[in-house]
Amino acid sequence: MKSINLEEISKMDKLYRINLINSITGIKPANLIGTKSIEGEMNLAIISSVVHLGSNPPLIGFVMRPSKEVRRDTFDNIMETSCYTINAVGIDFLAKAHYTSAKFESHVSEFEQCQLTPLFDDDFEAPFVGESALKFAMKTVEVLEISNGTKFIIGKVQKILVDPKGLATDGQIDLEKLDIAGVSGLNAYYALKKSSSFPYARPNKLPSWD
Amino acid sequence: MKSINLEEISKMDKLYRINLINSITGIKPANLIGTKSIEGEMNLAIISSVVHLGSNPPLIGFVMRPSKEVRRDTFDNIMETSCYTINAVGIDFLAKAHYTSAKFESHVSEFEQCQLTPLFDDDFEAPFVGESALKFAMKTVEVLEISNGTKFIIGKVQKILVDPKGLATDGQIDLEKLDIAGVSGLNAYYALKKSSSFPYARPNKLPSWD
Repeated sequence: MKSINLEEISKMDKLYRINLINSITGIKPANLIGTKSIEGEMNLAIISSVVHLGSNPPLIGFVMRPSKEVRRDTFDNIMETSCYTINAVGIDFLAKAHYTSAKFESHVSEFEQCQLTPLFDDDFEAPFVGESALKFAMKTVEVLEISNGTKFIIGKVQKILVDPKGLATDGQIDLEKLDIAGVSGLNAYYALKKSSSFPYARPNKLPSWD
Repeated sequence: MKSINLEEISKMDKLYRINLINSITGIKPANLIGTKSIEGEMNLAIISSVVHLGSNPPLIGFVMRPSKEVRRDTFDNIMETSCYTINAVGIDFLAKAHYTSAKFESHVSEFEQCQLTPLFDDDFEAPFVGESALKFAMKTVEVLEISNGTKFIIGKVQKILVDPKGLATDGQIDLEKLDIAGVSGLNAYYALKKSSSFPYARPNKLPSWD
């Protein structure tokens, strides 16, 4: 095994360190966050940090580091309106999803620039991504501040839209059937292939390991 | 698209809701958290909520809900020692990794029960998983409390151990070459197949979409 210590990490070339530290956590979900400002301008940002927090109530978090240049619009829209959507990225629109990460000028819509389709459902204020096979509407519950200036935005699921061909009878979503993508590091996208499922684990029902 | 609203979510059968809400976020990294108590007892817990927070300093978070029954040992060990390891789950030891989630009695080592190999590196107190091709040592930086009782544990990377065949010259880790697994919901594991990489996105260098 190659061993890399903290001193070596701190002395690394910046881009090498970004690539390494962004990929050691393993595969990440690729999602697009859709928002609309109170003036009606729409934004879309690709985010790899969406994380499950609880099922009842249904709470989901994601991490973002707002700065003057990057994704400030998305963060501001969420703070202003409390509404956002989370849309799974499909293998069939990977490039369009990736290029939402370009630092477009403020008030430029990534929907337009990357030719993705804003979709409004009922009276929910934020736009969904029409192309996405799995998406949900969120309302902000709390925003935690992390010591490095990053924000942890926590919201409650309001509504789920899912292509029924990917929804199993037990409530699980089949990510392979919906051709949903994962991401590693900043720009490497992976297709998902179902490998195996195991029953709920009980201490007195372990498999024989031999 | 099938549409499911918040009222329907709150009235769902409990297991159906757990399966659904745990799978709407997309693919999740499958990692094992290794710890050792001050009395020297080792614990191992499978966690799907590891998330990147920053590269310089290298900060990584994960979410866990400690309760009297579940994974209390792992949480207590981290609070006592500030040390833990994060170990990527490989397709070749999926079952062993999954069964660490059984509610073993306190003071039972999941390493022993699931026949995974504790590996100590230098003088770092917490055990790594010998079988894992990508793993890193962590020290706690802060623990944030989320409104639903969940804890967000934030730590700083101390050392990385990686099979060199998966480490590219630019610092990126190839998850397919290392046969690293993703997880959806509570128990569905996915293999990862590299699909495509894109350059750093610039507003004036968008592809032609036609």
